[in-house]
Amino acid sequence: MPIVKQSEAKKVAFAPDRTRYIAYTEHLMITVFDFHNGPWAQPDPPHSHPHEQVTYVADGKVRFFLDGVATELKTGDLIAIPGGVPHSIQILTPDLRMVDTFTPLRDEFLEK
Amino acid sequence: MPIVKQSEAKKVAFAPDRTRYIAYTEHLMITVFDFHNGPWAQPDPPHSHPHEQVTYVADGKVRFFLDGVATELKTGDLIAIPGGVPHSIQILTPDLRMVDTFTPLRDEFLEK
Repeated sequence: MPIVKQSEAKKVAFAPDRTRYIAYTEHLMITVFDFHNGPWAQPDPPHSHPHEQVTYVADGKVRFFLDGVATELKTGDLIAIPGGVPHSIQILTPDLRMVDTFTPLRDEFLEK
Repeated sequence: MPIVKQSEAKKVAFAPDRTRYIAYTEHLMITVFDFHNGPWAQPDPPHSHPHEQVTYVADGKVRFFLDGVATELKTGDLIAIPGGVPHSIQILTPDLRMVDTFTPLRDEFLEK
C-alpha cells in the first residue's frame, strides 16, 4: 500500500456525495476528501480530535472555522489545526477536494 | 500561521524554477512544491530522511522511485514513504505540483 493511484483507490462513501481515500505510513496519514453536495447553506457542527491536522485545499472554495474564527480558503491554500482545536467547514462551491493530513493516524479511517 | 493562503504565502525559491511553501503544526508539516523545469531526462539522485513522508500529486505527472522501484504517478495519486527509505523523482510534465507531508517537521524548511 505505499502507492495509491486515484483510478484504483478504494474510495469510501462515508455519506451521500462524499468520498475519501487514504495513504499512510506508521504515524502519518493523507485523506483525500471529495464533496459533491455543495454549496452548503451553513457549516457542519464543529468537531475536534487529538490528532494534529494540516489541510491543503486541492480544488474548490470552503469557509473554514477554526476555534470559531472563519476564513475563506480556495485551491492552493493551507490551514494548520493543532490537536484538540474545534473546527468545521462550510463548502462554498458545488465540488470540493480537500487533502487532510493527520498525525497520528485516524484509526477510524483504516479498513476494519 | 495557522492559515497560509497561496496568494500571500512566502514562497521559497530553493532552486531555479522550483518553489515551496509550508504550513505546520507541532509534529506535522505540509510542503507544497512547484516545479516549472520539467520534463526531466532522468531522475534526481535518491535521498532519504528519517521523517515519514506521504505525498499527494496535485498537478502533473512524475516518475517516483521508491527504494529503486519506479512508478508513474499523476494528479490525485498518493505515495507513502516510511522514514529512511531512499526515494527520488523524475518529472514528466513541464509543470508539477506535489504536496509532500512529513512527520516530524523538516526543520530545514522552517524559516531561520
